Amino acid sequence: MKQLLVDDVGEFGLIRRIMHDFIFRPELLVVGPGDDGAVYRTPGGYDQVISTDTMVEGIHFTRKTMSPFDVGYHLAASNFSDMAAMGAEAVGFVLSIALPGDLPLSWVDRFYDGLRACCRKYRVNLLGGDVTGSTKGLILTGTVTGMVPEGKAVTRSGARQGDIIFVTGTAGDSAAGLYALLHDMGEEWPSLTVRHQRPEPQIPLGILLRKAGAHALNDISDGLSREWNEIAKASGVELEIELEKVPLSEAVRALAERVHRDPLTWALNGGEDYQLTGTISPSDFDTIKKEMPITPVGRVVKKPGTGVYVWRHGQRRLLQAKGFDHFEK
Amino acid sequence: MKQLLVDDVGEFGLIRRIMHDFIFRPELLVVGPGDDGAVYRTPGGYDQVISTDTMVEGIHFTRKTMSPFDVGYHLAASNFSDMAAMGAEAVGFVLSIALPGDLPLSWVDRFYDGLRACCRKYRVNLLGGDVTGSTKGLILTGTVTGMVPEGKAVTRSGARQGDIIFVTGTAGDSAAGLYALLHDMGEEWPSLTVRHQRPEPQIPLGILLRKAGAHALNDISDGLSREWNEIAKASGVELEIELEKVPLSEAVRALAERVHRDPLTWALNGGEDYQLTGTISPSDFDTIKKEMPITPVGRVVKKPGTGVYVWRHGQRRLLQAKGFDHFEK
Repeated sequence: MKQLLVDDVGEFGLIRRIMHDFIFRPELLVVGPGDDGAVYRTPGGYDQVISTDTMVEGIHFTRKTMSPFDVGYHLAASNFSDMAAMGAEAVGFVLSIALPGDLPLSWVDRFYDGLRACCRKYRVNLLGGDVTGSTKGLILTGTVTGMVPEGKAVTRSGARQGDIIFVTGTAGDSAAGLYALLHDMGEEWPSLTVRHQRPEPQIPLGILLRKAGAHALNDISDGLSREWNEIAKASGVELEIELEKVPLSEAVRALAERVHRDPLTWALNGGEDYQLTGTISPSDFDTIKKEMPITPVGRVVKKPGTGVYVWRHGQRRLLQAKGFDHFEK
Repeated sequence: MKQLLVDDVGEFGLIRRIMHDFIFRPELLVVGPGDDGAVYRTPGGYDQVISTDTMVEGIHFTRKTMSPFDVGYHLAASNFSDMAAMGAEAVGFVLSIALPGDLPLSWVDRFYDGLRACCRKYRVNLLGGDVTGSTKGLILTGTVTGMVPEGKAVTRSGARQGDIIFVTGTAGDSAAGLYALLHDMGEEWPSLTVRHQRPEPQIPLGILLRKAGAHALNDISDGLSREWNEIAKASGVELEIELEKVPLSEAVRALAERVHRDPLTWALNGGEDYQLTGTISPSDFDTIKKEMPITPVGRVVKKPGTGVYVWRHGQRRLLQAKGFDHFEK
């Protein structure tokens, strides 16, 4: 039987095919997808949050590193993660996809399965989108809207001198997973590859951190070195990190040892972990540390300031964004 | 002097270059672009509206038919038009652009000039976006958010038997302008080409129509034949249109005569006019017809129903979406 392609059904046929199971939080919906715009209602006393994120075939993924299901899941998760980084919950998602006409329809079906799975898990309404042709390759753009109590969004610019710098979960797993996939070792390291292919947005932790009084928050999309530099610059503070404290999973350490690499390179320069890093007062940190997987990795030492300094093996060095080249031992 | 390209400055250099003059409605802004998400606040008693629209080089525009300024203006306008079609005002806009590395930076600058011009005119905040590479061609995705008084969004599904069907402004100008551009006649028909290159979203008319009690509303993005069929299907009604009444500009008639074409083909099958069409009760129509450029073109004749019927030269025919093949005379 001939495999059906995108061109065989056209734009409107494709839309009919994918338009089901879009609403996972009906109480917020006023007008669903299919009209010129979707309409939703958030409760009084909330601010609106918005962010957009794109995945390009050949740049953010290849058919070797991600299945179509993974691409859909990852696209939703990377967008929702930006809501987590503001202490917000995700509410709605719209999608624009540019597809080559010779793409198998089954690819699109599995992509939507992944997208839907992530939307269902985090109770986010799929509010519509746009389907266009692409002259080459897949380009997938998601835009997420969220809500956060008025005036309570956690920015990256609120870090205060004396704050604890924290990281949730572990860092570097996604980059290590990508390394394994690209070196044909993916099957041996499933706990790492899943972190790259199907990352989880830390929305519940973002909300807990907001309620606990976190002063600054970023999601780890571009590697810890860049996230910390963004917080330092936006907040006008100097950060001091003890690299030995950066939380690394057993699997990251094991793969690094096997391939003779420094696991911190993945954590600091890698990105796409979609865990959270930020700052909070020491007393608030003590209150929440038992409630969630969170590790203290340093301190906000100076305001005004702008730099990130890291300690390792008794040496103190300036850490630039994606500038980690591991110290001499 | 060597022309600077996107690759010469990279993603973060590009972002620094374009991050200015983003906020045209500061009273709604809480956290501006540059953080993980932007935060905005709409007044109590409003619903949120969202829509997304993409332009792909080679499909929606070419360097022959649109300048970079035009592409920016058109992208914003086509998104804002979806808010007009809901009777909403546009509030915020986020943008995702996938650019080939060999694109001149001056292209990006002029593109943002056009985008900003449209945002400034309609007082829409640019709330951020995402910049990625593209393996080939430009892909530009905008997402707009808007607001409309609670429960007052005008959908395409509310048409009622006995309603007047109306069209604002004139239809077919954009398609005629594209025809002129593609046939090297653009300079002769500036009133048409501007409608293709820099369309205006009819936000003020959409709001007036909502307040006047319009029952159904669509923007003319895909040609009148498709818009009417969408209204008929979504509302479960039968529409009857008098084609002689479809408002055509003098320029559309003149160009059609010159090139021996039926000007209605542009109005019915063309699209991208971004005027509005919809239905309203006869008494409400009489009240508003002096306040705005609006033309009655037919009636909602039957509920339940699903089809669109057109009269021309005394004949009645079913009009399918993009199915206008002009009648025998």
